[in-house]
Amino acid sequence: MHALVERLYPLCRSITGDGVRATLDIIGEHIALDRHEVPTGTQVFDWTVPQEWNIRDAWIADADGKRVVDFAESNLHVVGYSVPVSATMSLAELRPHLHTLPDRPSWVPYRTSYYSPAWGFCLAQETLDALPEGDYEVRIDSTLADGHLSYGEHVVPGQVADEVIVSCHICHPSLANDNLAGVAVAIAVAKALVNPWYTYRFLFMPGTIGAITWLARDDVDRVEHGVVLACAGDRGDLTYKRSRRGDAEIDRVLEHVLRDRPHRILDFSPYGYDERQFCSPGFNLGVGSLTRTPYAGYPEYHTSADNPDFVSPAAMEDTLAVLREAFAVLDRNRRYTNLSPYGEPQLGKRGLYDSLGGRSDAKQAQMAMLWVLNLSDGDHDLLDITRRSGLEFDAVAAAADALRDAGLVAG
Amino acid sequence: MHALVERLYPLCRSITGDGVRATLDIIGEHIALDRHEVPTGTQVFDWTVPQEWNIRDAWIADADGKRVVDFAESNLHVVGYSVPVSATMSLAELRPHLHTLPDRPSWVPYRTSYYSPAWGFCLAQETLDALPEGDYEVRIDSTLADGHLSYGEHVVPGQVADEVIVSCHICHPSLANDNLAGVAVAIAVAKALVNPWYTYRFLFMPGTIGAITWLARDDVDRVEHGVVLACAGDRGDLTYKRSRRGDAEIDRVLEHVLRDRPHRILDFSPYGYDERQFCSPGFNLGVGSLTRTPYAGYPEYHTSADNPDFVSPAAMEDTLAVLREAFAVLDRNRRYTNLSPYGEPQLGKRGLYDSLGGRSDAKQAQMAMLWVLNLSDGDHDLLDITRRSGLEFDAVAAAADALRDAGLVAG
Amino acid sequence: MHALVERLYPLCRSITGDGVRATLDIIGEHIALDRHEVPTGTQVFDWTVPQEWNIRDAWIADADGKRVVDFAESNLHVVGYSVPVSATMSLAELRPHLHTLPDRPSWVPYRTSYYSPAWGFCLAQETLDALPEGDYEVRIDSTLADGHLSYGEHVVPGQVADEVIVSCHICHPSLANDNLAGVAVAIAVAKALVNPWYTYRFLFMPGTIGAITWLARDDVDRVEHGVVLACAGDRGDLTYKRSRRGDAEIDRVLEHVLRDRPHRILDFSPYGYDERQFCSPGFNLGVGSLTRTPYAGYPEYHTSADNPDFVSPAAMEDTLAVLREAFAVLDRNRRYTNLSPYGEPQLGKRGLYDSLGGRSDAKQAQMAMLWVLNLSDGDHDLLDITRRSGLEFDAVAAAADALRDAGLVAG
Repeated sequence: MHALVERLYPLCRSITGDGVRATLDIIGEHIALDRHEVPTGTQVFDWTVPQEWNIRDAWIADADGKRVVDFAESNLHVVGYSVPVSATMSLAELRPHLHTLPDRPSWVPYRTSYYSPAWGFCLAQETLDALPEGDYEVRIDSTLADGHLSYGEHVVPGQVADEVIVSCHICHPSLANDNLAGVAVAIAVAKALVNPWYTYRFLFMPGTIGAITWLARDDVDRVEHGVVLACAGDRGDLTYKRSRRGDAEIDRVLEHVLRDRPHRILDFSPYGYDERQFCSPGFNLGVGSLTRTPYAGYPEYHTSADNPDFVSPAAMEDTLAVLREAFAVLDRNRRYTNLSPYGEPQLGKRGLYDSLGGRSDAKQAQMAMLWVLNLSDGDHDLLDITRRSGLEFDAVAAAADALRDAGLVAG
Repeated sequence: MHALVERLYPLCRSITGDGVRATLDIIGEHIALDRHEVPTGTQVFDWTVPQEWNIRDAWIADADGKRVVDFAESNLHVVGYSVPVSATMSLAELRPHLHTLPDRPSWVPYRTSYYSPAWGFCLAQETLDALPEGDYEVRIDSTLADGHLSYGEHVVPGQVADEVIVSCHICHPSLANDNLAGVAVAIAVAKALVNPWYTYRFLFMPGTIGAITWLARDDVDRVEHGVVLACAGDRGDLTYKRSRRGDAEIDRVLEHVLRDRPHRILDFSPYGYDERQFCSPGFNLGVGSLTRTPYAGYPEYHTSADNPDFVSPAAMEDTLAVLREAFAVLDRNRRYTNLSPYGEPQLGKRGLYDSLGGRSDAKQAQMAMLWVLNLSDGDHDLLDITRRSGLEFDAVAAAADALRDAGLVAG
Repeated sequence: MHALVERLYPLCRSITGDGVRATLDIIGEHIALDRHEVPTGTQVFDWTVPQEWNIRDAWIADADGKRVVDFAESNLHVVGYSVPVSATMSLAELRPHLHTLPDRPSWVPYRTSYYSPAWGFCLAQETLDALPEGDYEVRIDSTLADGHLSYGEHVVPGQVADEVIVSCHICHPSLANDNLAGVAVAIAVAKALVNPWYTYRFLFMPGTIGAITWLARDDVDRVEHGVVLACAGDRGDLTYKRSRRGDAEIDRVLEHVLRDRPHRILDFSPYGYDERQFCSPGFNLGVGSLTRTPYAGYPEYHTSADNPDFVSPAAMEDTLAVLREAFAVLDRNRRYTNLSPYGEPQLGKRGLYDSLGGRSDAKQAQMAMLWVLNLSDGDHDLLDITRRSGLEFDAVAAAADALRDAGLVAG
């Protein structure tokens, strides 16, 4: 996963353009992608697909022609969606177009101006401080022109058509945790799924406009559950932010899987990543957000310090493990109905006491069967029964399987 | 406000009679009053409007003709609704008609006997202890006769006909906090209202029978919210007692306004002031009760020590400020519907990011807009959104105004 | 009660057989019993009434003919439902049929094998350790043959046909707390009921198969409330385990009665005694379970140490007192409707202020009437009103009686 982060890191992504396409090309080397190109001007709910932005080069050169700020060194140096510029101007004239982080003098900030025409450069405060007064040559060789918005989907077919979506934003240029780590973990999750119950759809889309475009074009009714995956690789604890519903099944699953690890649970709030769109009141999907340190919660956020060194292979493995466990639970979680609800059924005559291995396992298996029988009234799923009983989810699910095979529960 | 308390203090009020009318006269000097006179014998639900009580003089004189207890000194000296008496009797015969506070020997208690014919005097224990045995001349020059029950209403018309009621009992004679302070604060609130959203109705009525009479005669369906205001001037912290519903909008408003001040919140109980009537199960109105120290919660309660000195101008100002803030919140609190609920609407193209002043204000305004958009689904009002978001109510309400002006929410 | 425990103790009970009948004979000496005999092979929901088991003698004798384990000394020595055996075998061959408690070397465990044909002996680990190698004569003189399952019912007719059931299992041989103490307390409760509101039905049945048989044959619709009574005499605190509903009226009653005593409240779980059957999802009755130390919660559980000495007369008296108080509350608990719900009714004109004895009693009685009037809206019963008001249940119930007699509430 970390090698993929490093490989994707140098590309200059934005909400449209060739950097997005190159990113999708590389993702497509790992998993099959359905790719979509939506034309500039397409109306998507309240929004319009914008013009496509591409950039070849950009720099500021001093009186000696020396490039003091250079896009070739880092794509963060140019404000995203900058209009083309070719001019000579004094440092005083240039200053309003320069963005720095005075508190972090060696870091370069990440800035964009998607929907109002502007241009600018981002640089280290140290670099700015070292610039002498005088004239500078300024060049941004970019184009803003009708084109397309690009996104990709990877689908793992399930036993049912109901879907789980995993959504990653791919619109950030050289930022590693935000969100190349999420992309790498999502690919690993996709590759690990084998004949799942649900159909899993992985979405690689630019933030906001990409999600809104997808929502406008797709059949959202089949989405039962989902996770927005971002900031998946920093060294902080995992953070799950609940869906807007607050008690959606995905919320209960993630809280269950995280309960024995260091973690944070946050209530929904309408900012962050594309859970904003999936959880807008018209959709109100059961989609939560999984990050490690949350959105905007670390100093390196949206700066040149969010580089591949900031991303830990172990942290990505941990995020991957939690998502795999969560989807394993989600896939087995069901609401059964007891077909023999008047008194307990006689388990012994069906061999459900005997076939159970060692003593303490047998005891747990028997308890799990009694719990599943008692609470399988259509109101409780296996996760509810797990919480009420204090048993392991796997024991409860195994009991449900045994009872279903014996014809005692259905669902 | 304190001057008004002092002016009203000497009048001998009861549940009917000229003292009530004189009180309404003075209130009418400050705010326009609709006055009502309901004849004795009128049936009001389970009750009947009683005979009118008036009193001119009352005293107990000793063998030398010296008045040892005198209504002219304080109207508390006579039990309210005492029947007329003119007799000479021994101290022993008199004693069952004398009420004192043995634990507070210098204070005079307040007693009434509205619905069973009786007579009596209230006096300091010290005074009683100083009385020698012997005969006393006893005189109560009162009348109990068919007449009227009097009450007054002041209405501040709003933009809607839905009403907020503010109710004050005016049946207590020389007791300052209970309830002349409430009357004074209510008048000040009424004068401060300018073009409110709701129609505000201020009720100045005798306790119990007055409220029941008003409820029997009036159209209660238009009452949406209300506050019973009493004990508004003592030096204790504010106390809000919830409506019987417990989660009425007025309850949430008062809890919101009080949250950053020292205060107490009490659940509803069926004793206290006229919230008993407004919150009887047949009405179950959204009416709470605001006091400082609650009903019967201070030693001076229903004694001569509840005099104008017991009432603090600063405490009345504080009660006034809280009520004004509460009504400002109530008037702005609405349940909006997001008209663009599929994904977020594009705020930038409507100038809703730009027009917002300084950076931190702009951030809060943007957050407030996102929260209002996300939760305006018909289930949440602005106060809910304030609580969920942790933002200021004013910021949330301003965001709602901006979004409504932009056509993004309605309601 | 303790004498009854001692008298019932030696009988060899099981889920069927003459030991059960002898137990019902003795119970029938104290309270009238309707006795039922259900034939072997009768289908009861998912179960079938098994063959009847009777045993006359059983022993293990050593080479000298000396009985080293003898049913005549304690009926715990034979595994319940053991098939007949008459054989000579080595100790090695015998060992798989011998059950001990290695951690409690002087105690004899209690074991059964109801639904799979087997035989065995239970003995002290000390006894086993003292047995030399060699041949032993093994004899179990038992019969397993078509017969009947026996149970008994005692009904105390109430003013209404709605029923409260009290259920005790009677299938355990020489175990005192589990459940002869429960039987003795149930008999005492039955004898103490005088003209109750509900009809009370006391059930003396073998565990599991008995309860399922009763549920299959009886009209369960008339069961409104119930308590499974077991382990009623050990020295531990009382434990109430809620019904599956968790907020059934019986749950609220027991929690109310226990609140001022040392006690435990447990949520429902689908193991323990016959609450498993009454609370199976198809029935989901309002039936909780009252024990002292709960099921399987003490070392003496299901061993020879659960003898009459383990049962304390004082503990049985305490269990009895709690059940009597609970049923007294249950019988008086009602949901009334205020017939004068618009404002308060005038209590004074009905003499409801006067007839109330001493001052503080009068105050509490008046408060209780105001609370009953205010909350008698069809949603609250007297127990709810007790909890909301903080008053005594008896005061609230007395207020309701007075208001009902005055025609102010009905229900």
